[in-house]
Amino acid sequence: MQATKIKAGIVGGTGYTGVELLRLLARHPDVEIACITSRGEAGQRVSDMFPSLRGHVDLPFTDPAQANLAACDVVFFATPNGIAMQQTRALLDGGARVIDLAADFRIKDIAVWEKWYGMSHACPDLVAEAVYGLPEINRAEIAKARLVANPGCYPTAVQLGFLPLLKAGVVDETQLIADAKSGVSGAGRKAETHILFAEAGDNFKAYGVAGHRHLPEISQGLTAMSGKRVGLTFVPHLTPLIRGIHATLYARLTKDADVQSLFEEHYRNERFVDVLPKGSHPETRSVRGSNQCRIAVHKPQGGDVVVVLSVIDNLVKGAAGQAVQNMNIMFGLPETTALEIVPLLP
Amino acid sequence: MQATKIKAGIVGGTGYTGVELLRLLARHPDVEIACITSRGEAGQRVSDMFPSLRGHVDLPFTDPAQANLAACDVVFFATPNGIAMQQTRALLDGGARVIDLAADFRIKDIAVWEKWYGMSHACPDLVAEAVYGLPEINRAEIAKARLVANPGCYPTAVQLGFLPLLKAGVVDETQLIADAKSGVSGAGRKAETHILFAEAGDNFKAYGVAGHRHLPEISQGLTAMSGKRVGLTFVPHLTPLIRGIHATLYARLTKDADVQSLFEEHYRNERFVDVLPKGSHPETRSVRGSNQCRIAVHKPQGGDVVVVLSVIDNLVKGAAGQAVQNMNIMFGLPETTALEIVPLLP
Amino acid sequence: MQATKIKAGIVGGTGYTGVELLRLLARHPDVEIACITSRGEAGQRVSDMFPSLRGHVDLPFTDPAQANLAACDVVFFATPNGIAMQQTRALLDGGARVIDLAADFRIKDIAVWEKWYGMSHACPDLVAEAVYGLPEINRAEIAKARLVANPGCYPTAVQLGFLPLLKAGVVDETQLIADAKSGVSGAGRKAETHILFAEAGDNFKAYGVAGHRHLPEISQGLTAMSGKRVGLTFVPHLTPLIRGIHATLYARLTKDADVQSLFEEHYRNERFVDVLPKGSHPETRSVRGSNQCRIAVHKPQGGDVVVVLSVIDNLVKGAAGQAVQNMNIMFGLPETTALEIVPLLP
Amino acid sequence: MQATKIKAGIVGGTGYTGVELLRLLARHPDVEIACITSRGEAGQRVSDMFPSLRGHVDLPFTDPAQANLAACDVVFFATPNGIAMQQTRALLDGGARVIDLAADFRIKDIAVWEKWYGMSHACPDLVAEAVYGLPEINRAEIAKARLVANPGCYPTAVQLGFLPLLKAGVVDETQLIADAKSGVSGAGRKAETHILFAEAGDNFKAYGVAGHRHLPEISQGLTAMSGKRVGLTFVPHLTPLIRGIHATLYARLTKDADVQSLFEEHYRNERFVDVLPKGSHPETRSVRGSNQCRIAVHKPQGGDVVVVLSVIDNLVKGAAGQAVQNMNIMFGLPETTALEIVPLLP
Repeated sequence: MQATKIKAGIVGGTGYTGVELLRLLARHPDVEIACITSRGEAGQRVSDMFPSLRGHVDLPFTDPAQANLAACDVVFFATPNGIAMQQTRALLDGGARVIDLAADFRIKDIAVWEKWYGMSHACPDLVAEAVYGLPEINRAEIAKARLVANPGCYPTAVQLGFLPLLKAGVVDETQLIADAKSGVSGAGRKAETHILFAEAGDNFKAYGVAGHRHLPEISQGLTAMSGKRVGLTFVPHLTPLIRGIHATLYARLTKDADVQSLFEEHYRNERFVDVLPKGSHPETRSVRGSNQCRIAVHKPQGGDVVVVLSVIDNLVKGAAGQAVQNMNIMFGLPETTALEIVPLLP
Repeated sequence: MQATKIKAGIVGGTGYTGVELLRLLARHPDVEIACITSRGEAGQRVSDMFPSLRGHVDLPFTDPAQANLAACDVVFFATPNGIAMQQTRALLDGGARVIDLAADFRIKDIAVWEKWYGMSHACPDLVAEAVYGLPEINRAEIAKARLVANPGCYPTAVQLGFLPLLKAGVVDETQLIADAKSGVSGAGRKAETHILFAEAGDNFKAYGVAGHRHLPEISQGLTAMSGKRVGLTFVPHLTPLIRGIHATLYARLTKDADVQSLFEEHYRNERFVDVLPKGSHPETRSVRGSNQCRIAVHKPQGGDVVVVLSVIDNLVKGAAGQAVQNMNIMFGLPETTALEIVPLLP
Repeated sequence: MQATKIKAGIVGGTGYTGVELLRLLARHPDVEIACITSRGEAGQRVSDMFPSLRGHVDLPFTDPAQANLAACDVVFFATPNGIAMQQTRALLDGGARVIDLAADFRIKDIAVWEKWYGMSHACPDLVAEAVYGLPEINRAEIAKARLVANPGCYPTAVQLGFLPLLKAGVVDETQLIADAKSGVSGAGRKAETHILFAEAGDNFKAYGVAGHRHLPEISQGLTAMSGKRVGLTFVPHLTPLIRGIHATLYARLTKDADVQSLFEEHYRNERFVDVLPKGSHPETRSVRGSNQCRIAVHKPQGGDVVVVLSVIDNLVKGAAGQAVQNMNIMFGLPETTALEIVPLLP
Repeated sequence: MQATKIKAGIVGGTGYTGVELLRLLARHPDVEIACITSRGEAGQRVSDMFPSLRGHVDLPFTDPAQANLAACDVVFFATPNGIAMQQTRALLDGGARVIDLAADFRIKDIAVWEKWYGMSHACPDLVAEAVYGLPEINRAEIAKARLVANPGCYPTAVQLGFLPLLKAGVVDETQLIADAKSGVSGAGRKAETHILFAEAGDNFKAYGVAGHRHLPEISQGLTAMSGKRVGLTFVPHLTPLIRGIHATLYARLTKDADVQSLFEEHYRNERFVDVLPKGSHPETRSVRGSNQCRIAVHKPQGGDVVVVLSVIDNLVKGAAGQAVQNMNIMFGLPETTALEIVPLLP
């Protein structure tokens, strides 16, 4: 049914979330990639910059000023923070739907957003309208949304890991700890010294302990799950792997609970959240290249501390894959379309 | 058309070529994975050993003695050398087709094979019958074959790189050099000290300079292309990457030749060999997870030395992907079925 | 003063702690490496196995049965657990001093040791005598010791990170969390599948969440510091780096405390513990190859959770370097002898 | 003899060769680091940028305009190309000796230099005076030099590998091939996209096949050794390791020669060139952090092709270590002072 293909536009196609969107959409049977924009690379073929796309994507980058995004059914923003909020209203008014992979529409409290992102917000009313695109929480709202705020990578891994515990109300929500480790692609494709191979390779460090932009996003989500204001300590770490997030979560049980059953039942019908058998330790590579989140839950030494291990591929379930999942939901397609990918192991 | 699916068996499913075959066959629309054998892991679910397969492959490993391989339409051997030759005759007699990913049927000269592999061959007559499964050379024979010897990883990258030059007869075939670099997965999944992370990581070395088993396989292939006995120096290197082979090939031109055109014309109709634009340097990651070979060709400083750069993913075009390509050809399917994979970059 | 050199023997020289001891002792001006044993490699030159030692160590491995360890002033055990306890009494009786880099003498409660290590202890009385070789805690006892139990790698990083807080009594000792990440060399040089390059590379995972042998060792140490029985959740992770441990420690402050000053004052005179300026994030590579521990301490968002970041090189301060430090103390040498190494960065 | 310490200045201390010079000089008993300059980081302590130097180097960066380099006995330039040539004459006139780790004085033919480096040379007469600082070739001249051009990393590995063959005149000098692989630190510490961790990690590629700046430097050196103009094909590759160069060299023997003996005899008295036993394959990690070059030589299948494997640490023997070796020679110190480093393995 060629005639009914979804016309998709991508704004900002030279970063890792852009090329990952292309990887996924290139094999999507119901999508036509209508255009992909880049100010700096206009005219260059996408596959000249990313030879992995040779034979799969034949488009050149289009200058944003020339791009006919208004003709698209859906526009993905794979841009730095602060771009999508400038262009979204016009696109929505023209009838397109918008999925922002950056942070412009993730945080409902405008003052909090402006503090952490260091700029004034251009369209607070659209923030109010935007649906936070974590399907495992907001599937019904996503289906009706014009504008979806695609979650951050850490927030996806951490929220999916805490969700069953907070929903069930079995942990002390005031003392949550998220010790998270990310592959270096999470820092993007900008040329910066600290993510050079000879800096980040064979090296491990924490960063942003004093405060990271994903903290208010995670706190907002956990508070919504819990119904009570949560207390969260969030420590991200830079890890010498290319893709992957591993979140190690700690909470104190306030009630006796069979946490294994709790997680299995909560995620029974979720195709992209896989609760591993008791005693497991998920590896980041077990989800490499796929939209899967894998979770294991432990009560070490039978005490009252519950430890949740949650892994995703930061570029897929933590970015482009979740965006495609959201698009599938928004357009009434089977949620797994183009996402039935077997992870690449080894 | 469930009824007509090809029943595939895999012998030896616990190594990297085994899990890679499963990754590819799990998404093959015309194949049903009938069984996968392992002596050591019989009864265990494949996805317990390789969690990347959870949700995609639901089979347990079967003990070889219990496996009904005779009921399969095609049997893949992803075993150590010397196993396939023990079982192939019975399978062929029973009507199955066989694709051996090990080396049992690759070398026509039995004495040479026995010298390099250190054992007596169990079925020289089947070696004579076997077709060397490099589709870019032997497509027609593969289509008719009962038994295919799937090429080695180095031999695939090196032969595809030299093929247009030798076919055209424009280089001195007595002085060929292949300086090849392989990711560590090429050494398999056996527990051996030299391929530990703390040994092979952040380290680079040559090995087997005095002689490597892939040398006679490559020489046989190059000699067939050239029509004359070739002289080849082959130096393999172990590289700290997981997947990927990069072959850097050197030859001396004996005739003036537009080597760029030569390569482009030779591979014009090959879906899995991509000749890059003049001046390119293919990266191993540009083929990661895919069945692609990418090639660039140079004449440095306009001299008479031609340098060919050829990259593949050793587990795909160098093993499991080429095996599926061969199967597709043998069973009259479109050659790219289940192989239209966009490489994973980054 | 050649005549007075300390004669050192190393039992078990083929693992990473063995070769690391050799690296350090080879440049120690007051030590003569008298012998190094290996059952499997007897007769082979050490530098044939480890070419990095060519020109620095000229010894062959000696068969343990032939080694004249009794003639040594100090014997290092770089062996698997359970070996040192068989041989220590005789060596001590003969007048040698012993430093065990394995776990035989680390845990005072024999029943606990036997449970976690799965064997009967051969000499409980020597466990009682042994001094736990963490100089920053036990310097005076080490100076008098005949037998030193060299701490584990995780225990070193974790104990040094919690020490000032527990000594000062400013945190809730019942709710400590240690989220620790180790390079793969911490798993040793045994050929095992899970630490192959193609398994552990580009991958991250937790392990041993249900219980790890270093847990009782750490708990014993923290309890001694605190004077009260501590509650500790310890989660180790395998990280794709060769050397390095990063411990991220969480505790709840029970009193208002200037934690930065607390740490700086506690470690003011410790040459091998470096408290970084406020707001820092130590990198594992900043201690690579050196005996240094670097620590930073944070109170995120000014709350009551204190986060300590502690890094060491697991093979140096976490093993061989600390053993040499202990030896220096035991023999009255300047503690830093042979340990004034500038870390290798990048 | 504090009074007689050599006062050393370093111009450009924020790159990898700068920090590596500091690592080595910090432990040099006869050197006082007098100043280290950086335009961008003036005032910052060197150890704030490179925490590995904490406790070893206590200097701040000095603004070049303020630095009293004239008071130094020796000045190292660890700068981009084109800087040293601006400042060297004044320093020499003031009595200092100069060691340039960049390329300003390496190539004698000014026209060739200007073509490859794309600028006019500021002081051709000093190029004529400068001594090429490869001690294994030019030791006597270095001892008398005011100005030393420290060799490039690839040129060091390649020239040391070809030297015995060309000196002995046993190979065809018109058909030399150098297939070289470098760790990513060889590209420096500038923020550039292609050397990001997520670009260069788990990836392998050739680059500069059409022409690399080290080609004329190597050709000049080989031609001097041979006495005849050499023909060289040089292909560099970017390898996912931090430090290390592996050069695989190919030449055709024109005379029967015992190449193993040839190499052993040639390098018998060289402390920093280690010829491995016949049949060896040197690993880059066997020289990590040290000033060593290790070489193995092979004649595969007993033919007339000789294969030389030559490894160095690009930042030590390929840069800062060789510079210190040159300084030792220039100042009459034992050549190995501060360079008796056991490589870091693993």
